[in-house]
Amino acid sequence: MKKMDYQNVKGTQDYLPEAEVTRREVRRTLEDVFIQYGCKPLETPILNYTELLASKYAGGAEILEEMYTLTDRGKRDLALRYDLTIPFAKVAAMNPGISMPFKRYEIGKVFRDGPIKAGRFREFTQCDVDIVGVDSQVAEAELMMMALDAFGRLGMNVTIQYNNRKLLTGMLEVFGVEADKINPAVLILDKLEKVGVKSVVTELEDMQITQSTKSAIEQFLTDENNASFDYFESYSKENPDVSEGLEEVKELSSYLDFLGITEQCVFNPFLARGLEIYTGTIYEIFLTERTITSSIGSGGRYDNAIGGLIGTDEAISTVGISFGLDVIFAAIIASRKDLNQTSGIYYYIIPLGTEKEALRVAADLRRSGKTVELEMSKRKLGKLLEKANREGVRNVIVIGEEEVRKKKYKVRDMLTGEEKLWDM
Amino acid sequence: MKKMDYQNVKGTQDYLPEAEVTRREVRRTLEDVFIQYGCKPLETPILNYTELLASKYAGGAEILEEMYTLTDRGKRDLALRYDLTIPFAKVAAMNPGISMPFKRYEIGKVFRDGPIKAGRFREFTQCDVDIVGVDSQVAEAELMMMALDAFGRLGMNVTIQYNNRKLLTGMLEVFGVEADKINPAVLILDKLEKVGVKSVVTELEDMQITQSTKSAIEQFLTDENNASFDYFESYSKENPDVSEGLEEVKELSSYLDFLGITEQCVFNPFLARGLEIYTGTIYEIFLTERTITSSIGSGGRYDNAIGGLIGTDEAISTVGISFGLDVIFAAIIASRKDLNQTSGIYYYIIPLGTEKEALRVAADLRRSGKTVELEMSKRKLGKLLEKANREGVRNVIVIGEEEVRKKKYKVRDMLTGEEKLWDM
Repeated sequence: MKKMDYQNVKGTQDYLPEAEVTRREVRRTLEDVFIQYGCKPLETPILNYTELLASKYAGGAEILEEMYTLTDRGKRDLALRYDLTIPFAKVAAMNPGISMPFKRYEIGKVFRDGPIKAGRFREFTQCDVDIVGVDSQVAEAELMMMALDAFGRLGMNVTIQYNNRKLLTGMLEVFGVEADKINPAVLILDKLEKVGVKSVVTELEDMQITQSTKSAIEQFLTDENNASFDYFESYSKENPDVSEGLEEVKELSSYLDFLGITEQCVFNPFLARGLEIYTGTIYEIFLTERTITSSIGSGGRYDNAIGGLIGTDEAISTVGISFGLDVIFAAIIASRKDLNQTSGIYYYIIPLGTEKEALRVAADLRRSGKTVELEMSKRKLGKLLEKANREGVRNVIVIGEEEVRKKKYKVRDMLTGEEKLWDM
Repeated sequence: MKKMDYQNVKGTQDYLPEAEVTRREVRRTLEDVFIQYGCKPLETPILNYTELLASKYAGGAEILEEMYTLTDRGKRDLALRYDLTIPFAKVAAMNPGISMPFKRYEIGKVFRDGPIKAGRFREFTQCDVDIVGVDSQVAEAELMMMALDAFGRLGMNVTIQYNNRKLLTGMLEVFGVEADKINPAVLILDKLEKVGVKSVVTELEDMQITQSTKSAIEQFLTDENNASFDYFESYSKENPDVSEGLEEVKELSSYLDFLGITEQCVFNPFLARGLEIYTGTIYEIFLTERTITSSIGSGGRYDNAIGGLIGTDEAISTVGISFGLDVIFAAIIASRKDLNQTSGIYYYIIPLGTEKEALRVAADLRRSGKTVELEMSKRKLGKLLEKANREGVRNVIVIGEEEVRKKKYKVRDMLTGEEKLWDM
């Protein structure tokens, strides 16, 4: 027979048990935290009508190019979801009776036919929480607290940088950036950390801004006092966006202060977040040690997207946070020399021609709630004990003819070496 | 703004929180049982090369017609997986070092562009366990025990019907069905329960079998003793398939007997299972009350599929079982008058202009491990207390100015009416 040349599709991968055990822990930890914060689960389909995902209130031109599209047997134009936000907005649109505020979480696969980097795939898992119907910064504070809680339980040290889109765009207005150049300028500022002040200013110059605007931005980016709220007070009088943004940042900051988490939550007035949808607070979560430089979670307030999708004129207050399972997993394995190799097996039963009795012993022990592996191969005992050692099995039980005759078997604790005799 | 006409793609659906809470319980229960039986998790991509999924060792012509296909930006021919078996075989092929026997589970979405029935969708979730590398019936016995355990924990009364493909096809040979008509005849027998003996025999006649073959099959299907192993003993001498099949059924039956589960595991000599891939034991799980008539789980032994996919001449022993999350969910909601409407919230905190303090109380209570919802809307207290009642919240905490001043708040147990005063 010809061996087929198997491979995974570019941008996808398998997670073998050693890896998947860790991913399962991460997924469950996040879900447990979401539940503890009163979030409700939602499950939406991966397959959607292209028309929905391509709505102008959706992900924007760049993301649409990365959308996988297909046609079903009924000639419908379908696409694979590229995030969990649009499907959520669709649910809100289809179920106007949902009681507000609505806090939902969803953990699921999304697909983007885009560039591949380390820890970045074309098929990946997002873990999202969104809150609809809350316009105060309490929502942001809860989500940031929740993120710290989740990463704390995962044993990861993180720092959350936050800013406010109104504050940032207001400052750009103050400095004289014209309305149609604000969004492109935000995209350039988004690269600040990666490329530095000089490159950013050069790129801004290419946008044909005036010399005075350029100097003002440059000074802003390098002023030592720019991270204090006082710096913005004076600008607040001349620009309503700065004023509103500053109020929101101060409100959020007072909550963070009261929660005692200002050390992990740091105001960064240059944080930009590329996506156009944001309308207020924005945040990004980083490993404090920065062993992985890209963010491992992010989000913010986007009050216009759902309203736009639903087709109402009112803004619908929405704040979200998204955790990338794959990048969190990459961060965890980067911080460990080895993956956890223990199999989690508490009793490992090796029958020596006594399958029938071993099946029953396994059933009895499982009734006690323990994880039990029953060996089914007929390999030599020595090989099987080696396997037990290698996989960090806790207790080994060998059942031979004699054990069956005496109706007793030995349980050997591999950690302490202790042996106990139990009745069959 | 124009309201878009939102709808879900035919054959897909959203699961709102009331439903999703139940699905989450089912998913976790199944996963916990899989883990307890020593199964290891695997995660494979949804996107696959069409060539792999269309392999002749894969799902067969009927399933291929139902395959969703697409092309990515790199012009690759891709398809969405329609089961979890082929991706599993691919993993085995790509990782020849995997230690055998290998017991893996995977829970994930699969896609089939086929007919829709009640509880049957085009995008649905399968929960599969497969064991590779075990040729004795111990594997079957473990999987059947595991299924009973899982459904027991879900509070569902089930019966597992089992049979053996060799026994069934051997009997058809004995009755004179020609080799090329065996598989079509199995497909016809698969409908026995639905259409009855008479229709089955009529359909078999259309296949141009001889009168004596027809009579023999008819007698077999109606003989009162056909469910006892003795019935097959005499045929066992004249046909090696009957002989082998009978040996296997007897071995399996002895394990089930020893485990004390013969009441829930019933030998059904006509059970056929449509899929051609099966080579030995087959089983289907039904609700004992048959409130849902179709099976809620099924599987069997298919020793040739993985070998064929890998491209080796040897048979590779494989037994699997598959649980359909969607049909299990449908069975559960059919058996309940209402979905569980309690939100699972242990503390529900209502701030009256005291967001800052409420955030901190929420954080403190969450540290104790409880599920805490912090109300963020500014609706009237009366409305919020109604909501607390409706959602079955356990304790309500209202924090106003006075509570903040006295640094004490009341916790009202909604079940007992008891109130306690706690320090803030």
